[in-house]
Amino acid sequence: MEEILELIKEKSYSKVKKLLADMLIPDVAELLENIEEDTDLIVTFRLLPKSLGAEVFSYISSELQETLVKSLSDKEITYIIEDMYTDDAVDLIDELPANVVEKVLKNSTKETRQLINKLLMYKDNTAGSIMTTEFVDFKSGMTVEKALSRIRRIGKNVETINLLYVTTKERVLQGVLSIRELLLADQEDTVDDLMETNVISVDTSMDQEEIALIFQKYDFLSLPVVDKENRLVGIVTIDDVVDIINEEASDDIAIMNAVAPNDKPYLKTSIWKIWLNRMPWLMLLMISATFTGIIITKNESVLSASAFGIVLTSCIPMLMGTGGNAGGQASATIIRGISLNEISFKDSLIVIWKEIRVAVLLGLSLAVVCFLKLLYIDGLYKMDDGYLVAGVVCLAMFITVLVAKVVGSFLPLIAKKCKLDPAVMASPFITTILDIISLLILCGLTTAILPI
Amino acid sequence: MEEILELIKEKSYSKVKKLLADMLIPDVAELLENIEEDTDLIVTFRLLPKSLGAEVFSYISSELQETLVKSLSDKEITYIIEDMYTDDAVDLIDELPANVVEKVLKNSTKETRQLINKLLMYKDNTAGSIMTTEFVDFKSGMTVEKALSRIRRIGKNVETINLLYVTTKERVLQGVLSIRELLLADQEDTVDDLMETNVISVDTSMDQEEIALIFQKYDFLSLPVVDKENRLVGIVTIDDVVDIINEEASDDIAIMNAVAPNDKPYLKTSIWKIWLNRMPWLMLLMISATFTGIIITKNESVLSASAFGIVLTSCIPMLMGTGGNAGGQASATIIRGISLNEISFKDSLIVIWKEIRVAVLLGLSLAVVCFLKLLYIDGLYKMDDGYLVAGVVCLAMFITVLVAKVVGSFLPLIAKKCKLDPAVMASPFITTILDIISLLILCGLTTAILPI
Repeated sequence: MEEILELIKEKSYSKVKKLLADMLIPDVAELLENIEEDTDLIVTFRLLPKSLGAEVFSYISSELQETLVKSLSDKEITYIIEDMYTDDAVDLIDELPANVVEKVLKNSTKETRQLINKLLMYKDNTAGSIMTTEFVDFKSGMTVEKALSRIRRIGKNVETINLLYVTTKERVLQGVLSIRELLLADQEDTVDDLMETNVISVDTSMDQEEIALIFQKYDFLSLPVVDKENRLVGIVTIDDVVDIINEEASDDIAIMNAVAPNDKPYLKTSIWKIWLNRMPWLMLLMISATFTGIIITKNESVLSASAFGIVLTSCIPMLMGTGGNAGGQASATIIRGISLNEISFKDSLIVIWKEIRVAVLLGLSLAVVCFLKLLYIDGLYKMDDGYLVAGVVCLAMFITVLVAKVVGSFLPLIAKKCKLDPAVMASPFITTILDIISLLILCGLTTAILPI
Repeated sequence: MEEILELIKEKSYSKVKKLLADMLIPDVAELLENIEEDTDLIVTFRLLPKSLGAEVFSYISSELQETLVKSLSDKEITYIIEDMYTDDAVDLIDELPANVVEKVLKNSTKETRQLINKLLMYKDNTAGSIMTTEFVDFKSGMTVEKALSRIRRIGKNVETINLLYVTTKERVLQGVLSIRELLLADQEDTVDDLMETNVISVDTSMDQEEIALIFQKYDFLSLPVVDKENRLVGIVTIDDVVDIINEEASDDIAIMNAVAPNDKPYLKTSIWKIWLNRMPWLMLLMISATFTGIIITKNESVLSASAFGIVLTSCIPMLMGTGGNAGGQASATIIRGISLNEISFKDSLIVIWKEIRVAVLLGLSLAVVCFLKLLYIDGLYKMDDGYLVAGVVCLAMFITVLVAKVVGSFLPLIAKKCKLDPAVMASPFITTILDIISLLILCGLTTAILPI
């Protein structure tokens, strides 16, 4: 990689051209991303075999696509756009600024333009917006021999031939078969003999997250997309699904840490955008935390007036921290389970009962360690009522863990039920709530039990 | 689904049998998971067409596999195990208890037994442990016609025919071609004319996380696995990679929330196992939090002795909370970037410089809001030195956010460099560190600036 970049800088283009021809497309794309000068970039792109242009285009970032489109000739653009799969072309148009889009559309054929415009109308992240329209379909009744010759004819221009679809004359989806079944069959069989008629298809408006779950359950390589009349309009392929799965996991992780999701790699995101993604949540959580401050202030007399004031105050961070962590553990587990479709709202009672039992185990373990620590490391055993104070702190710890697990596991389930993103109910949010709850528990127990 | 479960309870087996024959394998597996009685489960499994047994087996949970193996006859087990793909058979053996494994191995042929034993020797989560040995390979020099007839001969027993591999007589990997290229080529061409010789392969010991990244970059459907002499020994297929991507994301999310990763679905995990997964981290974090307590106790004179004591104390939760959240945002972003191979240790300086600038923006925004809140909502503007106190709190806030972002972004990078899991350096851990740091900052500034 370093070597080729060096050769490009030295303008040893014939050597570069030879090396490029042997490289895999994603590696070429990575190389282009690393070229610093725009002029070098354009020259290098032109050194590529013409037939690879469209493929390389669908692997590079939108910044690079924009630079290239601006500099390429109309003829070159026409060649690329007509050669791209529609899903990639739609992505391209989606990302480019308006004036550049104009240049692309002006240089595409009327058919391509119409197709792109149609696909652009589907809402983001739906089956319609990620599907490709280049697939192999057979008319019902076709023989294996004819089917194979159809593949030989149109196979070069479709995105995949691994799964093949059978439709009626009206393009209504009838069945699916694999290229393997076709190859292993007799030449005289019809596609109807071979096809699986229990075919799973999705509507153009289905959300990409649900599509990913279908792929995961059934191990499909592609999935047919149909319109309201069950006519086959496109397919979603596994390579797009891999990207979706990663994207959804990244979004979940971001939201679970109080960051708005972002589809660009971190190193390519501007600091203003990062600021904007992090600011609102941080501000909201800061303001919420002032309530904790108010509670501490209001209860200062309770907490610090007694002889044990200093012990109780020093236990507050431990209590609040443990509450937040215990709640965060539960919420993260449940949020992930919801994302993978392993847990749904109807399991709420099972989940809460499970969390209560786990909380009892955890609460007891922590309380015992905490009790011993307070008595023998902090030396409470030497004080009057020392055992009682240690007992109060540990009881507060136990109740906090119990409440934390119930709140942490139940809030994501409620969020899902209310069609909110469960990932919002994660650690930062849960921690802020539990700070308040754990303080109230400690203050309540202190007032009720300790002789103040 | 409900309907079939009802029919099974009513023992209407002929109806069930008919319905089962029309169902897709993953749906059958889901149905079996939902049968309550073991006897019903075994009867239903026996109603399946014999040829589907092995496939259904590779989709069900290990608990179900165990129940079935214990009840099936030796002959039935032989049929299933011989029909399974080796990667699924290895998974099966891996999960079952020793006495059940014995029953399975006793009923498999010598060849299968040897193959399984060989694959079991590869370390967990490596290419060797997830690969399948059923693939199509061509000897170099083979014509397209012969290649196609080889596919017709062995195609039924391999896991995929979408990508095909060319090797020398000594089984050294030479190239790869797709079924599409083979179908579109002339019958007289040789596989060598068609194959891509720049073939990406992985060693049997490569980690599954890296394998997933290769699939994501190159959009492969399968990837060849070679031994030290570059001989083709197996392939990894995309369906396994989809599971790996989900598993790795789940593991990251668990570790980032102080939970040990778990490969079983939550609802099927025992409360003892959940307790064990959550206990150690919670205990460690609880003990670490006592340091925060010690700092508060030691600085009590500083914080509460002055006239502003009550204001400063009430600001502690806000400061600590914001520090933890700001650090958690940064660490989550960097940890995910590292997982997706978008960020590596060599980018450290770029990352830290970026985080410093973002922190300045965030720190300023938060400090301004905090300043106004302290003055006009908490009424500090009416007090002597009120502006000074508000200023000190906001300065502490600004510095805390700055430190939080640097610590939060740098620790995951250091962890990666030290070959530790970066996900450990996430919110719970960062929060505990930042609780201490933010307190020290506040106490330091108070002592230095305020007239106490």
